[in-house]
Amino acid sequence: MNAESFFPKNIKAALHNNPPGEWIPSVPTNAIRLHSGYPAPQLVPSKELKEAVAQLLDEENDLPLHYIGSPRIDKLKEWVRLRQGVRGMPAKVEELLITAGACQGIDLIARIFLDKDAVVVVESPTYMEALEIFQNYTDQIITVPIDKNGLHTEHLAKMLAERKQIGLTMPSFLYTIPTFHNPTGTTMSEDRRGHVLELAEEYDFLVLEDDAYGELGFTDNPNTLKSMDTKDRVLYVGSLSKVVAPGMRIGWVHATVKFIHALFWFKKDLEHPFAQATMATLLENTDFTSRLQTLSKNYKEKCQVMLDALEKYLPEDAEWFVPGGGYFVWVKLPGIDTEKLLTDAMKEGVSFLPGKYFFLDQTEGIEYLRLSFSYENEEGILKGIQKLGKVVSSSLN
Amino acid sequence: MNAESFFPKNIKAALHNNPPGEWIPSVPTNAIRLHSGYPAPQLVPSKELKEAVAQLLDEENDLPLHYIGSPRIDKLKEWVRLRQGVRGMPAKVEELLITAGACQGIDLIARIFLDKDAVVVVESPTYMEALEIFQNYTDQIITVPIDKNGLHTEHLAKMLAERKQIGLTMPSFLYTIPTFHNPTGTTMSEDRRGHVLELAEEYDFLVLEDDAYGELGFTDNPNTLKSMDTKDRVLYVGSLSKVVAPGMRIGWVHATVKFIHALFWFKKDLEHPFAQATMATLLENTDFTSRLQTLSKNYKEKCQVMLDALEKYLPEDAEWFVPGGGYFVWVKLPGIDTEKLLTDAMKEGVSFLPGKYFFLDQTEGIEYLRLSFSYENEEGILKGIQKLGKVVSSSLN
Repeated sequence: MNAESFFPKNIKAALHNNPPGEWIPSVPTNAIRLHSGYPAPQLVPSKELKEAVAQLLDEENDLPLHYIGSPRIDKLKEWVRLRQGVRGMPAKVEELLITAGACQGIDLIARIFLDKDAVVVVESPTYMEALEIFQNYTDQIITVPIDKNGLHTEHLAKMLAERKQIGLTMPSFLYTIPTFHNPTGTTMSEDRRGHVLELAEEYDFLVLEDDAYGELGFTDNPNTLKSMDTKDRVLYVGSLSKVVAPGMRIGWVHATVKFIHALFWFKKDLEHPFAQATMATLLENTDFTSRLQTLSKNYKEKCQVMLDALEKYLPEDAEWFVPGGGYFVWVKLPGIDTEKLLTDAMKEGVSFLPGKYFFLDQTEGIEYLRLSFSYENEEGILKGIQKLGKVVSSSLN
Repeated sequence: MNAESFFPKNIKAALHNNPPGEWIPSVPTNAIRLHSGYPAPQLVPSKELKEAVAQLLDEENDLPLHYIGSPRIDKLKEWVRLRQGVRGMPAKVEELLITAGACQGIDLIARIFLDKDAVVVVESPTYMEALEIFQNYTDQIITVPIDKNGLHTEHLAKMLAERKQIGLTMPSFLYTIPTFHNPTGTTMSEDRRGHVLELAEEYDFLVLEDDAYGELGFTDNPNTLKSMDTKDRVLYVGSLSKVVAPGMRIGWVHATVKFIHALFWFKKDLEHPFAQATMATLLENTDFTSRLQTLSKNYKEKCQVMLDALEKYLPEDAEWFVPGGGYFVWVKLPGIDTEKLLTDAMKEGVSFLPGKYFFLDQTEGIEYLRLSFSYENEEGILKGIQKLGKVVSSSLN
């Protein structure tokens, strides 16, 4: 039996990719982990979650363990609704869909807006999981570069004008992480945010705003595209992964009722009552503003330790963006193949993610790497960058 | 802005459906619930889950709250692997994918095998959620009737032969719930199981076996299609929803490595570490065989109470299948529109699901209804059927 004969044409691509998960470096357990986009272990509220589960099941018994029935499912949605409001994105309940993290939101949006003839625009570099998602549905992915002010909207405008002039298919949507970007740590300037929305209106495309890091600013959090959007152009994806715990898989989409309705019909993993009700209980007992302040302080300090260490231990021609928040520092090491470097780095006891995984054309990422300051403590970060400096020096000799 | 202009052609259908969830009757809280496909409240291990979470977080701290890292993710998969082996379906780890319930498994399979030109065969009636899933991807759904011995394979054979002769597109797969079927409670006979597999080989289609109820036999559990499959024709979907708790959203797909690999690339909600590790911990502490015996005894007794009450309180021309396991009794009430009946029944204080929701052509289901004996206790079932009998009598006058 020939398995491939069963697949519709546009699915065959999936069969020719690498095995799942192959890109994740198999990091030795005692290595310093600078590759993980994980929250700091001591900031993950595991004790509070244990208490939340106990409270939830004491109060509701079997309710959160059925398909529906726990009143806390609605409470979680209401919490998200209020949070969106606080952040300048007033929402009706019907404009929200709770998802299994931001990833499921992105995937659902790709599913309803992309077919194999559709065009999608992404930042370059961009979140690898999003790239994989879009590649499941279309081969027509267009990349627009990022600089220290985020997505280069003049490039975007030029590309759009050219496509229109030649008569090419125009994009269905632009996927962007405007704030504390993964992997570059950059933030789109206010001007460019306005420009993106103007272009969306002019060329009739939607904007998929991934705001997973949006509340993790070191000093402040910029206005979201969604909060500036007066034309219903923005589909907003939020997540509690980076501010509470990724393992709970709680995210959401905020969009017009019509879009939410369509997304719902394609979301066939149903509600996740236990996870959602547990999160609702945790949030009832959490001072979220204070939590964000704690996270911000921790990540700001660790980011500074990393930046100082990079200055001290990396060669002079190394470059990086200074992040205003989030989890990551994006480093360019001219003349170095970072995938090869990783092998040496792991032997030395430190990990990072090679830049290639964040590019559609992976050759563009050879000299880049992503470092995360979120997971390790200050001592770990300092030692990790020392080790990184050592293997970089060796590789240059 | 015209929302619909953004949707690829084959997605537009989703916009014209009813709002999500509209089919679920809004059942008064004090009504006797015979509509729910829910496990019995006292058999949902909420106390054990509370203990499992406490143990998990005490032992692993933040590990199950990150994206990956909890060793119990692998343990859950190993539990499933061993369980499949016990049931005559030896599996390699690479042949398994943990999903968010059976529904996500069915949806993933639909996504990789169906495009808008694809043909899928379903039983009639069938699981409503599966029908919705297939309708998201194709308009070409063919139904084959069910009788007391399950899917009528002679009908299937005739349909396949005719399609082949006329030169119509042949089916990509058959979706079947061979054991303790939802909604009819029927079980496919051994002969027909063999026939299905022969037809799959002869006409080159796959079989999607939904075995959500497969271990809930009152006396024994028939061999699965997967266990009889020597040609890698069967994609098996299992679930812990009906035997542990649906709110945990744990199911799995068992198929060839190539298919699992493709499914994985489309499963973009990522792992659910907290739910999976919690379930693994619960299962470590559970005598599963003994649990199944307890469930079987409970549901068998309650089913008998329901059947006896139906005999006593329904009109003589009412018909039903006698289930050998599972959750449901499927009732035919000649001359009665069960959707209209539901309004009266809810006023009387009892709920059921009108049959129409389980049919592609909903007019075929007018005289049918699905009763569940899983959720209520014996007293509730008895009272519920008394009430049902009363409203049926009234509607006939």
